[in-house]
Amino acid sequence: MIQTRHDPARIGFASDNYGGAHPAVIEALAVANNGHVSAYGADPYSEALPALFGELFGDGIEVYPVWNGTGANVVSLMALTERWDAVVCTTDAHINTDECGAPERVGGLKLLAIPTEHAKLRPEQLAIPMREFEDEHRARPSVLSLTQSTELGTVYTPSEVAALAAIAHGYGMSVHMDGARIANAAAALGVPVREFTRDAGVDVLSFGGTKNGLVFGEAVVVLSPERVRGMPYLRKLSMQLSSKMRFVSAQLEALLHDDLWLRSAGHSNAMARRLAAAVEALPGFEITSPVHANAVFVRLPRVVAERVQPDFPFYLWDETDHEHPVARWMCSFDHTEAHVDAFVAALAAANA
Amino acid sequence: MIQTRHDPARIGFASDNYGGAHPAVIEALAVANNGHVSAYGADPYSEALPALFGELFGDGIEVYPVWNGTGANVVSLMALTERWDAVVCTTDAHINTDECGAPERVGGLKLLAIPTEHAKLRPEQLAIPMREFEDEHRARPSVLSLTQSTELGTVYTPSEVAALAAIAHGYGMSVHMDGARIANAAAALGVPVREFTRDAGVDVLSFGGTKNGLVFGEAVVVLSPERVRGMPYLRKLSMQLSSKMRFVSAQLEALLHDDLWLRSAGHSNAMARRLAAAVEALPGFEITSPVHANAVFVRLPRVVAERVQPDFPFYLWDETDHEHPVARWMCSFDHTEAHVDAFVAALAAANA
Amino acid sequence: MIQTRHDPARIGFASDNYGGAHPAVIEALAVANNGHVSAYGADPYSEALPALFGELFGDGIEVYPVWNGTGANVVSLMALTERWDAVVCTTDAHINTDECGAPERVGGLKLLAIPTEHAKLRPEQLAIPMREFEDEHRARPSVLSLTQSTELGTVYTPSEVAALAAIAHGYGMSVHMDGARIANAAAALGVPVREFTRDAGVDVLSFGGTKNGLVFGEAVVVLSPERVRGMPYLRKLSMQLSSKMRFVSAQLEALLHDDLWLRSAGHSNAMARRLAAAVEALPGFEITSPVHANAVFVRLPRVVAERVQPDFPFYLWDETDHEHPVARWMCSFDHTEAHVDAFVAALAAANA
Amino acid sequence: MIQTRHDPARIGFASDNYGGAHPAVIEALAVANNGHVSAYGADPYSEALPALFGELFGDGIEVYPVWNGTGANVVSLMALTERWDAVVCTTDAHINTDECGAPERVGGLKLLAIPTEHAKLRPEQLAIPMREFEDEHRARPSVLSLTQSTELGTVYTPSEVAALAAIAHGYGMSVHMDGARIANAAAALGVPVREFTRDAGVDVLSFGGTKNGLVFGEAVVVLSPERVRGMPYLRKLSMQLSSKMRFVSAQLEALLHDDLWLRSAGHSNAMARRLAAAVEALPGFEITSPVHANAVFVRLPRVVAERVQPDFPFYLWDETDHEHPVARWMCSFDHTEAHVDAFVAALAAANA
Repeated sequence: MIQTRHDPARIGFASDNYGGAHPAVIEALAVANNGHVSAYGADPYSEALPALFGELFGDGIEVYPVWNGTGANVVSLMALTERWDAVVCTTDAHINTDECGAPERVGGLKLLAIPTEHAKLRPEQLAIPMREFEDEHRARPSVLSLTQSTELGTVYTPSEVAALAAIAHGYGMSVHMDGARIANAAAALGVPVREFTRDAGVDVLSFGGTKNGLVFGEAVVVLSPERVRGMPYLRKLSMQLSSKMRFVSAQLEALLHDDLWLRSAGHSNAMARRLAAAVEALPGFEITSPVHANAVFVRLPRVVAERVQPDFPFYLWDETDHEHPVARWMCSFDHTEAHVDAFVAALAAANA
Repeated sequence: MIQTRHDPARIGFASDNYGGAHPAVIEALAVANNGHVSAYGADPYSEALPALFGELFGDGIEVYPVWNGTGANVVSLMALTERWDAVVCTTDAHINTDECGAPERVGGLKLLAIPTEHAKLRPEQLAIPMREFEDEHRARPSVLSLTQSTELGTVYTPSEVAALAAIAHGYGMSVHMDGARIANAAAALGVPVREFTRDAGVDVLSFGGTKNGLVFGEAVVVLSPERVRGMPYLRKLSMQLSSKMRFVSAQLEALLHDDLWLRSAGHSNAMARRLAAAVEALPGFEITSPVHANAVFVRLPRVVAERVQPDFPFYLWDETDHEHPVARWMCSFDHTEAHVDAFVAALAAANA
Repeated sequence: MIQTRHDPARIGFASDNYGGAHPAVIEALAVANNGHVSAYGADPYSEALPALFGELFGDGIEVYPVWNGTGANVVSLMALTERWDAVVCTTDAHINTDECGAPERVGGLKLLAIPTEHAKLRPEQLAIPMREFEDEHRARPSVLSLTQSTELGTVYTPSEVAALAAIAHGYGMSVHMDGARIANAAAALGVPVREFTRDAGVDVLSFGGTKNGLVFGEAVVVLSPERVRGMPYLRKLSMQLSSKMRFVSAQLEALLHDDLWLRSAGHSNAMARRLAAAVEALPGFEITSPVHANAVFVRLPRVVAERVQPDFPFYLWDETDHEHPVARWMCSFDHTEAHVDAFVAALAAANA
Repeated sequence: MIQTRHDPARIGFASDNYGGAHPAVIEALAVANNGHVSAYGADPYSEALPALFGELFGDGIEVYPVWNGTGANVVSLMALTERWDAVVCTTDAHINTDECGAPERVGGLKLLAIPTEHAKLRPEQLAIPMREFEDEHRARPSVLSLTQSTELGTVYTPSEVAALAAIAHGYGMSVHMDGARIANAAAALGVPVREFTRDAGVDVLSFGGTKNGLVFGEAVVVLSPERVRGMPYLRKLSMQLSSKMRFVSAQLEALLHDDLWLRSAGHSNAMARRLAAAVEALPGFEITSPVHANAVFVRLPRVVAERVQPDFPFYLWDETDHEHPVARWMCSFDHTEAHVDAFVAALAAANA
């Protein structure tokens, strides 16, 4: 048996993927283990997913487990587009900034990225750009991709999603939602997830698992099957098809089971609120984006950040103001109030 | 906690990815769990891999964990090629037949597939084709990709690999090995894995884990770092970069630990030999490819196959002769002698 | 005014694209010149093309001028396929051997290349391969691409095309014809071009111009518009959209005008027959493929080839037998009987 | 002989590719015609190009004729990049707005588009974005692509190009110039073209021909051969390789001969200045971008535009202010003073 190489007591605020897996998820892997089942999704765990996700999203959906968030996004977008199409998103969108061009390179997609405030698109921003695309010289915008919760920790309300989706549908476009942190949005909004996805006009959803306590695994949830083509082929050719898929599907089941996904996200969000409330009181600290979900973006003195980072790792997000950069602190299911309080204490001490 | 949805007692011979994970692998996931470590490979499990694989392959190598075998192959081939290059392989190669065109679509690669006997290339087959590629009209062959053990369960000897690699290198080409089942080859040959890889001229190796008892995970082992470019970028843009990489790396460590990889593969091979030996005696059965590793290819009466498949699932590989198709039986770490014997008994009974 | 840099009296048999342009084509450029017309195809020359090609192919077709043959093929194939599809062709097909992987790299297509005799597919060769493609692991064969006349100078009869197309359609596939030398086929067969294209089941045709006397230019002729999607976009994104398209379209009109295309091709074919007939009599010479169109493939002593090549350039096509290679001699609209006879005389002298 | 289908007397201001070809260019096609020369660039016209362009750019350059501007740009950018690279450009760049995603789809490139004033980048705009790209999550910016003259008719001075290029080179990036209208920039600046290209740090130049009086044809001029890889292959695989290349090269020679390129561009620029000066005096008209080259961007009453467009076609470029849109008027080599004056008179009359 291999030995532990890391310090399980060490914790930081760098990202919700620095954490490990929820114990219930590790258990699920063992539950699904042993004996032979068909590979590539023809197993009882994978076959159960439409019904399980159907409890959240209703009937007539399709669920395709994939490896990771970039994979979920790119497969989703390919399934919604022709080879000549473009995807409208924000400049902050993960697909635009953090996927090393996978949408362009694997999907052959062009992204039309729109600058925003706090990473949220407003309806009026969609009006003009769409008018300009009339002939073959311009990549045809055919998908609007929204991130929920956003890369800056903000959340679209159900009516905000609905307003944007209505415009997109009016142009004949489809709507994709990058839900790597959809659980945090659902917990923040306190409404059924369906209200701000399927009922609001979202056609395909990247449902996040990894950042919410899985070992790995996301699900492409197709809410409007009539809008996609070739999902099984696209998942395979983009190298997102797991052979022993039972192990992805069992994790997803564990995540949905007994609302673990919502409970974990609700806890993460609470930790972020606790953290934000505490640091707002510190002199020289400024919260720069609304804390809707599990992220805290805060401007703070560089010297303070650098003193605390060795003990509590986190990233500087925006160093335009070099001496007063903006940090990003992410909270996850495994943060305790004690963790947060210790972090705040360290920040306060460094700031003294 | 979720409930078991499958029958762990059920076993078949369809594929080595129908099996689950080795208990030591599940344990490794728990060992690596809890606390925070850096994502995307900057964790102590991932950082240990070069030294661990170095015990097999020597110093100066690089190890890049990826999600799956198709991913390992495509990332490897992209790292060895320019945009205008081609890859020489066999018509049976997994990259040619079973990856839905991922090498072409994700990698932009052209495959030059050569028909073979028993899925093994012979040196003389490389001589003529390579001469024909002299200008920009033809995709430039820059990589030879060999599968070890092959898709038909055969194995290249170290000197066979060396002879092919020498020709390829002589043309200025690099050598890739698809080692989804490299453990089976190593066990079959009974020599150090280095002898038929690095020492024989292999430059980049897809080291298989999933088919040998992992939950998921493969490693691209770069044996000739001077021949590759952009591995970290290519892994990310092809959507093969795991965020919680500790969980891939810990599995790989468990696989290498105490030679689990070799022991599991040796057992699989032994089960295949036991199975082959038993069915060779059955009237109307014919072994169609040499049983070097963990696969048995056997021609048998269709009626017999169809009687046994419900209890012991397996695939028909070649149905050209409809009444006497060729079946593929794969053995894995979790087959026992009792499983094999029960299968043989069922075949014999159906053949009576 | 610039000066002539070449010797217009020099002539060879290397390729039908070594020749220049027919005088009527140069005239057409002048006719279309001067004044302003809309760019990118909204000009009266381009708009006339459907009616002009309709005289050959009937109503309801679409015509898309493109730059070159590779472009015509790749745009055609993309328009007929989804991102996950494959194209069945011969191993000799231009798309497989001479386009530097453009179908794979620009189109993301996988080619399934079948070895043939004299570059012509036979119906029975389509039967088995198609059966093997049932799931997402294999690129889905959705197009059969035939070359007419073939890369080895042979020609499919109308009934041969029809038989192959019927099989392809039966599998739900579409049929593309690479007609870079379709005029030579039409002249050889002596039937209306429609008989072995649209009426025989061809859905999209690459109609060749460059090798038949244009300065440049080919046309994608869509015979089954219901089978293609996105042609204008695909032509643009694959960089095959000409801005001053009037100049391509006027050339194509000149080619069709007064049957110049057929007359030029008939002449080329006659020159090839004259050449073949003459060299067949030479000792040590052997015609290796039937001379249906404007190509002569002939095995001859290397020493003879090398003596004649400086005065009459041509290519060696197959040097497997080094001392007795196979040469390819292409005839074009600008070869005269005197040219052919001088070439034969030189060969005979060198062979003496 | 085909008949004229258009009215050669009709002229407009829609685009410099609505015009035909300069008579010297048509003559050059005839000069290069007849007899056989090697295809694909091994002809004396193509082989003369490095020396001819060398008179402008100095020794040690490479020249690759291609079909069109999109092709020139994409081939250039591919030659300067790895598969994981990104290209920095302006949001107005032709590569970003008018190539239907060809850079993304054919080149697999990610564009990082920066908003600008009058389509010109300023050095300070390059500082911050480049700092943010440090790991494999972000596509690596490796090329700065500038357009000269820009899509809004403005021109970079030699020192402006040099300042931007110095920053790019400082980051290890290369510099590409989209010179579809480089002649207009050279004429506007009145300095040797080398001063604002090679000497200012441009590594690869798309040298425009079509918009300056060719039938078709552009040249990729590689000014820093050590920075590119695979040009011949990339030109072929992106379907930009002409078989009868003599006809592209002879046109390019005619363009350079006796400074036709500069004379034509100087004339176009003068016509634009004449037009701008005249309409500036019209009430309700406003020039919106500096008229450096051959484009005039003018805000005018919609009703006036719509009255004049039937007789003098032109495009509305920006209709954000619906009643007072911005029009783009392009001047080309074939505009006379009489044309301009007639257009101005029509505008004045419509404005009365």
